Amino acid sequence: MGLQRSHFESASTGPKIRAQTSSTADGWELERAVEEPQPPPSQRPRGGEDRRWPLLSGSGRSCPQKSAETLSSQYGLHLLLAGLLLMFAWAVHAVGVAKSAVLAYLLSLMALQLLWMAWYLCRRCAHKRLIQDKDTQAGARWLKCGITLFAIITLIMDSFKIGYFVGFSSCLPITEGIFPVAHAVHTLLQVYFLWCHAKDVIQSFKTLERFGVIHSVFTNLLLWTNGILAESKHQLNEHKERLITLGFGNISIELDDHTPLCNCTYSTLCSIFSQGIYYLYPFNIEYHILASTMLYVVWKNIGRKVEYLQPHKMPFKFQGTAIGSILGLVVFITTIVVVVVYLIQIGRSKLKSELALIMFYLYAITVLALMCAAGIVAILIYRLEDNSLDISKNPARKLDADLLVGTASGSWLLSWGSILAIICARSHPAYTWFSLPYSVLVIIEKYIQNLFIVESIHRENDKSNDDIKTLRILTVSSGSNLSPVASYKEIYNGTNGKLSSTFYGNSYPSENNSSCAFHGNINQSKIPVPPSSPDFSFTLRNFSVNNKRSILKNIAVFLFLCNLSLWIPQAFGCRPEYDNGLEEMVFGFEPWIIVVNLAMPFSIFYRMHSAASLFEVSCKI
Amino acid sequence: MGLQRSHFESASTGPKIRAQTSSTADGWELERAVEEPQPPPSQRPRGGEDRRWPLLSGSGRSCPQKSAETLSSQYGLHLLLAGLLLMFAWAVHAVGVAKSAVLAYLLSLMALQLLWMAWYLCRRCAHKRLIQDKDTQAGARWLKCGITLFAIITLIMDSFKIGYFVGFSSCLPITEGIFPVAHAVHTLLQVYFLWCHAKDVIQSFKTLERFGVIHSVFTNLLLWTNGILAESKHQLNEHKERLITLGFGNISIELDDHTPLCNCTYSTLCSIFSQGIYYLYPFNIEYHILASTMLYVVWKNIGRKVEYLQPHKMPFKFQGTAIGSILGLVVFITTIVVVVVYLIQIGRSKLKSELALIMFYLYAITVLALMCAAGIVAILIYRLEDNSLDISKNPARKLDADLLVGTASGSWLLSWGSILAIICARSHPAYTWFSLPYSVLVIIEKYIQNLFIVESIHRENDKSNDDIKTLRILTVSSGSNLSPVASYKEIYNGTNGKLSSTFYGNSYPSENNSSCAFHGNINQSKIPVPPSSPDFSFTLRNFSVNNKRSILKNIAVFLFLCNLSLWIPQAFGCRPEYDNGLEEMVFGFEPWIIVVNLAMPFSIFYRMHSAASLFEVSCKI
Repeated sequence: MGLQRSHFESASTGPKIRAQTSSTADGWELERAVEEPQPPPSQRPRGGEDRRWPLLSGSGRSCPQKSAETLSSQYGLHLLLAGLLLMFAWAVHAVGVAKSAVLAYLLSLMALQLLWMAWYLCRRCAHKRLIQDKDTQAGARWLKCGITLFAIITLIMDSFKIGYFVGFSSCLPITEGIFPVAHAVHTLLQVYFLWCHAKDVIQSFKTLERFGVIHSVFTNLLLWTNGILAESKHQLNEHKERLITLGFGNISIELDDHTPLCNCTYSTLCSIFSQGIYYLYPFNIEYHILASTMLYVVWKNIGRKVEYLQPHKMPFKFQGTAIGSILGLVVFITTIVVVVVYLIQIGRSKLKSELALIMFYLYAITVLALMCAAGIVAILIYRLEDNSLDISKNPARKLDADLLVGTASGSWLLSWGSILAIICARSHPAYTWFSLPYSVLVIIEKYIQNLFIVESIHRENDKSNDDIKTLRILTVSSGSNLSPVASYKEIYNGTNGKLSSTFYGNSYPSENNSSCAFHGNINQSKIPVPPSSPDFSFTLRNFSVNNKRSILKNIAVFLFLCNLSLWIPQAFGCRPEYDNGLEEMVFGFEPWIIVVNLAMPFSIFYRMHSAASLFEVSCKI
Repeated sequence: MGLQRSHFESASTGPKIRAQTSSTADGWELERAVEEPQPPPSQRPRGGEDRRWPLLSGSGRSCPQKSAETLSSQYGLHLLLAGLLLMFAWAVHAVGVAKSAVLAYLLSLMALQLLWMAWYLCRRCAHKRLIQDKDTQAGARWLKCGITLFAIITLIMDSFKIGYFVGFSSCLPITEGIFPVAHAVHTLLQVYFLWCHAKDVIQSFKTLERFGVIHSVFTNLLLWTNGILAESKHQLNEHKERLITLGFGNISIELDDHTPLCNCTYSTLCSIFSQGIYYLYPFNIEYHILASTMLYVVWKNIGRKVEYLQPHKMPFKFQGTAIGSILGLVVFITTIVVVVVYLIQIGRSKLKSELALIMFYLYAITVLALMCAAGIVAILIYRLEDNSLDISKNPARKLDADLLVGTASGSWLLSWGSILAIICARSHPAYTWFSLPYSVLVIIEKYIQNLFIVESIHRENDKSNDDIKTLRILTVSSGSNLSPVASYKEIYNGTNGKLSSTFYGNSYPSENNSSCAFHGNINQSKIPVPPSSPDFSFTLRNFSVNNKRSILKNIAVFLFLCNLSLWIPQAFGCRPEYDNGLEEMVFGFEPWIIVVNLAMPFSIFYRMHSAASLFEVSCKI
């Protein structure tokens, strides 16, 4: 190892021959060897860390590392499976499995994670002077802000839980008191960890740290599942209470009793706490799934060799997004009104329930239709351009795309269930017909929106791409016997200074641009582009591009606000899939409840996740 | 586009500067520009297909292609979700959903797939002269042979089903007769398609063909699910009949009646058919999941740019695997005996059932312990070597690794269920204690086996790697002022002729070896290796390497036969998870049956899939 490193160090001091591949709009690749520009001293690694300065980005790992990956992912899966089974056992009232068993399991997982995080933070403090590799694409600032917001609400929920426990302390098991305290500590340390280390690309103690990170990922996933379970039980109880009010005696109704057997020492406070907890649960649930995805990206990054990309900040600007913002805010406010009315009206009487359902369906159909239209326009605009695909390795982006399609399946399943129920049902009360366009629109809207988001996050930055295209046309159309290097220099000096970094395929601020050299025969075909036209065509294209950008930005902002809006009804218990009644009649009460409880968490997560992705898209455009 | 292509064509006629990265055992990368050797004329693309001769392998795609990927994968997901819901509705006896609805849905999917396959085959015939890109790593010959075997048994099953329908034609719906006929046609065409086109890397009509292939993938997945559903219903009925025999009246038992309401025209034949069908189902199930995975690899390969790897055949040789084969065959024969005895004894009486369970547990514990030991030895041998990781893009391999870990989760869930049941149960009959070591060993064995397989399929070919290492030591230890090119030439001429192709990082038969050139400073550190030692050390290492290879090969063959053996009990209804009774007591009858029916198909698939992977590993070693 020492041998190779010393070879490597000496190699990295002089200019190197470096292969570069620039993927262009048409899918073919131009390859050339250029003398690599030296990064500025501030970006160079110091000390004994030279081996972390990769010649080529990639995942050049050794076999033991691959083993560590498999080992740790399997360990994580076991944590998850055991936890899921324990929760399942508790949910189905298995013999000998109490809630305290589930809490004890979660407590031990959190304790282990706390220990590991403390160790990691101490080690990082002790080795502060070593420069740490960072994945600039992971852990965006707005993501951190979002998670902090959710964490603060989670802390409030924890304090409510502690208050509730104190009130009923005489008859609640001790785990119900320890859990919120430990959870609050866990939340505080984890948010600090994510703020400081979400971008880390861990290169040392890889096996141990793989286990630590994957343990954290699955601990958060289980805490997410636990939150969902508590929420689902609560929603199901409320639904059953409504059914009792409406006089449905034919369905086997058994309430999951969760009120303690003793009296609270200060009853009004206790009732506020117990009510408040369920309004805060949705935020707690989002917090854990977000933390889990961020930690997963850290895990994927372990041992990776990252390109030294200049961290290009994408500040969100409100200017030019007035139409999108206003429309989106209208949807947002309407949503809150609709949800409040729905929750007040539903279950009061048969008529009021039906009216509430019709109101909700009409609202949702309108919003979804608008979103579909916006999505289609955005995709059409993309089809008019022909940008190339950014194929660089990016675990955060891959996870985003996979999660979008994966979690959309949850609500697609529910929609197909509703459609099947309408087709198969023997009687159709008038209000149930609204369910058909609603379900179809849910399917289409997510289909289109996913296409838009996936394409947006995979597109290369347009500006640089346009520059490259212009450059290529000019280089080839010049038709002279000038060497490509010369014509490149000429163009470089003539246009804007941003070219160099783009052209190098990475973002080193280039100090010695003139050392760039082509190897390979460039065919000198003639294209009918007059040599004097670049400025004119550039201006024309810029105008059209700016218009398109503006429309796309408005659409992204509108969709962002719509997704945020559509998160609210589902997260706060406005669920027509329960209250409609048609599906329960066709599938049977229990089978349908199982389907809804399994699919709903993904459907809720989808809305928050797509909102986050759309925020990123609107910053990027 | 024409412009770039013509540039490209001219560039590909002369020698090109080509960057190469050889990832070595220690994880650092050596990069150099060498003049690329020209492939022999037989391997060169012809006609207008030059753009398919990539300079660098990668996935340089345009945005519309990424869109087509997302579009088609979402379409496939919808097919799956709608189908799953329909089957779920049928399974829970939803109002208005009959078996014929499910069959009609599957029939329409199969018809669409047949149309697409016919179109694809015709197009390929019409454009025969165009050379088609092939992914040499996909659709191995032994995989095709396996799928053909399963397909033949599936055809027998279809003929049984047709016979059964003819016998009961007076009272069975017509779909039950059409389905096996259509299924037989579908099977024939699909096997032909997979034989001829499993390696295809589709480069034209990408969007249409993406939809066709993904449609085929999900059609097969749904046929797999349909098979599982029929099988599970049958197993559950048998289990319930046994419980009735044993006098368990406290569990709500309701048989899914599936015998037709009229009499068969030739009753003995009908009973043979109906019995036979359920013994053939496991093969039908394996056929569909295998077809599905092969088609998925075709889908992943669409539009990909593949390296022109020499298709290196890996013939399986029995020589040197005597110990592994004999031990494996002993396990195989024992398994068949145990399964036959188990199926005869179980459910006869309480005592006979318990004895059968104890016999099965003892057998399984022994086999699993042996497999664990073998797996640990194999991993230790790998740890003694330090091979580098093969990081080339390979969709077939990635799918294999993901499926191994993913499907193992099914049986891990069952094992954790058994462990939880033992911990929580209030009474423990003696035979239930055997379930604990059995469950623990199932977990450990799959954990270790996955590690072994994943590492095996990701290792670079050892021979070439050894050569490279020897070369490197020699190059550096020579300590002279010879240019690296010169010393490389020297070594090349001195050792074996296989080096060149390895050293180029790909497998072109090199015609102009001497044109290889290094760029970069190689540090001339001195290592205490005498210049005259290469032959001696090479021989010594070869001896040790051959020994290790032999042990690894034996282990792979042994594990292959063991996995094949362990597939039999689960596939043919020897399921202690049902017959044990402890889990049903703790979780409740219905919850546990749901868990088993969801997890078991993955557990069964795991065994067949790991057997296939181990066969590949034993060929590769």
